[in-house]
Amino acid sequence: MQIGMVGLGKMGGNMAERLRRAGHEVVGYDRDPKVGDVASLEELAARLVAPRVVWVMVPAGEPTRSTVMRLGELLSPGDVVVDGGNSNYLDDRKHADALAEHGVGFVDVGVSGGVWGLENGYALMAGGDPQHVEKLQPIFQALKPEGEDGYVHAGTVGAGHFAKMVHNGIEYGIMQAFAEGWELLEATDVVTDVPGAFRSWRTGTVIRSWLLDLLVRALDEDPDLAELKGYAEDSGEGRWTVQAAVDHAVPLPAITAALYARFSSRQEDSPAMKMVAALRNQFGGHAVSS
Amino acid sequence: MQIGMVGLGKMGGNMAERLRRAGHEVVGYDRDPKVGDVASLEELAARLVAPRVVWVMVPAGEPTRSTVMRLGELLSPGDVVVDGGNSNYLDDRKHADALAEHGVGFVDVGVSGGVWGLENGYALMAGGDPQHVEKLQPIFQALKPEGEDGYVHAGTVGAGHFAKMVHNGIEYGIMQAFAEGWELLEATDVVTDVPGAFRSWRTGTVIRSWLLDLLVRALDEDPDLAELKGYAEDSGEGRWTVQAAVDHAVPLPAITAALYARFSSRQEDSPAMKMVAALRNQFGGHAVSS
Amino acid sequence: MQIGMVGLGKMGGNMAERLRRAGHEVVGYDRDPKVGDVASLEELAARLVAPRVVWVMVPAGEPTRSTVMRLGELLSPGDVVVDGGNSNYLDDRKHADALAEHGVGFVDVGVSGGVWGLENGYALMAGGDPQHVEKLQPIFQALKPEGEDGYVHAGTVGAGHFAKMVHNGIEYGIMQAFAEGWELLEATDVVTDVPGAFRSWRTGTVIRSWLLDLLVRALDEDPDLAELKGYAEDSGEGRWTVQAAVDHAVPLPAITAALYARFSSRQEDSPAMKMVAALRNQFGGHAVSS
Amino acid sequence: MQIGMVGLGKMGGNMAERLRRAGHEVVGYDRDPKVGDVASLEELAARLVAPRVVWVMVPAGEPTRSTVMRLGELLSPGDVVVDGGNSNYLDDRKHADALAEHGVGFVDVGVSGGVWGLENGYALMAGGDPQHVEKLQPIFQALKPEGEDGYVHAGTVGAGHFAKMVHNGIEYGIMQAFAEGWELLEATDVVTDVPGAFRSWRTGTVIRSWLLDLLVRALDEDPDLAELKGYAEDSGEGRWTVQAAVDHAVPLPAITAALYARFSSRQEDSPAMKMVAALRNQFGGHAVSS
Repeated sequence: MQIGMVGLGKMGGNMAERLRRAGHEVVGYDRDPKVGDVASLEELAARLVAPRVVWVMVPAGEPTRSTVMRLGELLSPGDVVVDGGNSNYLDDRKHADALAEHGVGFVDVGVSGGVWGLENGYALMAGGDPQHVEKLQPIFQALKPEGEDGYVHAGTVGAGHFAKMVHNGIEYGIMQAFAEGWELLEATDVVTDVPGAFRSWRTGTVIRSWLLDLLVRALDEDPDLAELKGYAEDSGEGRWTVQAAVDHAVPLPAITAALYARFSSRQEDSPAMKMVAALRNQFGGHAVSS
Repeated sequence: MQIGMVGLGKMGGNMAERLRRAGHEVVGYDRDPKVGDVASLEELAARLVAPRVVWVMVPAGEPTRSTVMRLGELLSPGDVVVDGGNSNYLDDRKHADALAEHGVGFVDVGVSGGVWGLENGYALMAGGDPQHVEKLQPIFQALKPEGEDGYVHAGTVGAGHFAKMVHNGIEYGIMQAFAEGWELLEATDVVTDVPGAFRSWRTGTVIRSWLLDLLVRALDEDPDLAELKGYAEDSGEGRWTVQAAVDHAVPLPAITAALYARFSSRQEDSPAMKMVAALRNQFGGHAVSS
Repeated sequence: MQIGMVGLGKMGGNMAERLRRAGHEVVGYDRDPKVGDVASLEELAARLVAPRVVWVMVPAGEPTRSTVMRLGELLSPGDVVVDGGNSNYLDDRKHADALAEHGVGFVDVGVSGGVWGLENGYALMAGGDPQHVEKLQPIFQALKPEGEDGYVHAGTVGAGHFAKMVHNGIEYGIMQAFAEGWELLEATDVVTDVPGAFRSWRTGTVIRSWLLDLLVRALDEDPDLAELKGYAEDSGEGRWTVQAAVDHAVPLPAITAALYARFSSRQEDSPAMKMVAALRNQFGGHAVSS
Repeated sequence: MQIGMVGLGKMGGNMAERLRRAGHEVVGYDRDPKVGDVASLEELAARLVAPRVVWVMVPAGEPTRSTVMRLGELLSPGDVVVDGGNSNYLDDRKHADALAEHGVGFVDVGVSGGVWGLENGYALMAGGDPQHVEKLQPIFQALKPEGEDGYVHAGTVGAGHFAKMVHNGIEYGIMQAFAEGWELLEATDVVTDVPGAFRSWRTGTVIRSWLLDLLVRALDEDPDLAELKGYAEDSGEGRWTVQAAVDHAVPLPAITAALYARFSSRQEDSPAMKMVAALRNQFGGHAVSS
């Protein structure tokens, strides 16, 4: 089928390519005029045959919001806009309502896959009304990995990004668990073949997983991780997971610990621990490091 | 080769069976006289041909200690005792030293595999001197899963149990991360197909793993886990992981959160939260639930 | 001076009384017609002499918002509205901007004091422009406790509620620390006079504090807290503290632990731990409690 | 009464001085020959009149153990040894048993007070048999602060150090709560008078406490704590609190968070976060900081 793709960066560009390989016609637009098939959203709308489907793959927040709003003006009743970016699920309802005023449908899709997606497919989590989600099935089938899994219609508008958000929250927790285990092994001299221990765990254990495979690969390349700094960004979904949990009174101690560890990793010095040092100095005449 | 197996319960019995299927001769002893090939440790020692190998697979703590000590008296220089149970790594050095007085070697092995081990093999993490570990290679090869992974000689005495302990600590953290994600999805009404979301994640995502497969199977059997109580035992290794971390000043926030969640799950009511309620009552005239 | 007070519940009513005892003229309004001096906000505005000061002491959220908006319509340039309720600091800027369109000033005040406030005074944290805060000094002086502390002009609009929010976050953490210590003492049989230990700490120790005094009083009344359930509400500020921290990438592990402990205390059963039990059941044939 | 004091460092020396001011006769011994009244433990035992009381105030662990053991050899039935150092409560039973073989009594005392103790008194938590504790009452009365609190006979042998350990665990949690609140206030620009906010809280609030007074004093001296590094030692009791909790299956999330924050503060770089960075690099081609 025919689809418009807005945003042809690393993710959008590869997804367009995967769709073309599957025989779909992709009309691409990017704000970089050197990339893409059309020069403007207006031209994109004109080139697509109604009922149109436009997949938006631009940064979350204002770029996504303004793109969706502009598409609402350009598209017609019966068309569908897909937000495949990393939007906060709370934005989805606003976008869906704004498009609905123009008779345009909205589907949010959480997309996982990164650099492997082009070859192996993208895991997809969709949210939206069944009538809109149904129209996108050929696209979803082309993008998703082979096999029976890798795609879910998770619920109504917002469910796709919410599911992806929770996926990422879980991912934070799992990564932290592996990282803590590695630190403990490294901090003691009991286990002398730490990379070997992780490698051995890939078969027959409870914790075998793709992240363990990646961990083994990382240690193969740099057995002590000597080339890296203990510095980790967080990408939005981790924060949103914790904030959604707090909104709904759900305790997430391990996932929150993972998020806070990333926050701490980016501090040159811990302000809180300066205060602890100050208090110790006040009450005990403890030696402080200054 | 020939090996003595002490303890023929669910783990030891299946391991003996897997060894026999691989062509090894296993002489089994269990304190239950209806099970096993010999009636006593003395008879076991007599039946084995030196240099003897005896694999101990009994509960950690006093049962393992007394068995190892008795074997020290019964065996001869050049023999080797293996502790494949869930012993604390700090006990291994004591056992090794006690056996060394008799010229008997000691190897500690962390064993993972559970109910699948008989068919699929047991992941093995060994600790001990190379000369002792070397003797056991035919046994390790028969017990471990097929493929290149599933076995590691992790270091000297204690390294096998230490590696297994950290494996279990990581396992606690991963399980907790999945469990928190599931709770958040269930606590909100955004995602309406929660089992479908987890199922979809088995392909193409960062968190695909054996534990995710088990989680999907559990939801297939009972989509809301309505048949279960939120009650989880801890098996020793989780506590030892945290205590080893505290001994070595290693922060383990996510793994510790997982352990504490299990502790809390076994409390009918939280004493700490009674105190919080009492304090709120004192300072605010807040309504308390009594 | 003259002041209007909107909301004459436990907090507002006592604050009006404390102001009257200090010689101020308070015109009170409450939506309950049996309480108060005037029957409507319109009448309140009419009774006050310009430049008017109206202190709003109603529930946070919609009640505060609608009251502030209505006062904006009723008041005149030069008047000042005070929000002394438990509003989220993010609402303050919106309220200030809406009032500014009418030339009306806005000051947010975090108020601490509870049932002791009438006799002992209320700790006050104010946010707003100096010109508006200055007008309120006679009111603040009458409400605050005796002595040099108990009042701060913390910053511009929002600073009062933000400071109160952080105060409450710290309070959550301190309460949790005491509660955990009490649970540990109760869970072991080493210390046999637990109330006596806490009582002794009131003098000469690092942790002496008003909350310790309250804790001792609570144990005096009920030495085992046998009359209480381990159930604790959270009042909004704790959640906002964590969410503000996540917004600003500030790790708050202890305060968040305190919040999550309250969440957990209100669950009859832990969904997350049902999943942990399900996973244990899947991989280990572990006995589960069902 | 007469008492021997072993260890005349900052704590022991000041305690000896406070006892002398109260009219007691203190015979002091220190391994530093320039300090003290006697040159050896033998001379100390000879100088004291039976039934003798010897207060040991030396570092925990081997120094305390060897001192207690030597005193057991030198003293006589009816004498009492007091361990006022920071020993682990698990050592107390061993020491008591060893002394009991010589008919010598044992009392463990947790001592709080630091640099203020000489003038203001030391908070004391005692553990031991009533007959031994009773003999020490004149000493306890001289050392403790004025007023009805500041001393408790908490239980049998070990209870004094256990109570002190829990006190310190609570202290860790409270300090962390204040420190987190300060970091949040500093990380945002809403509250512009942060020291003023803390100062205001000293009156009329829920969190007023001695630690808050110290915090205000610290900010008076250095409003941004610019002179300090975020580096905090832990003194043993914090670790023991967590380990005792794990031993008894008591969840201590806030106190453990405080301990882990100190661990992290002493790491130049976080090994765990190096692994998180490595994993992010593997799966996402995320930029890493190297």
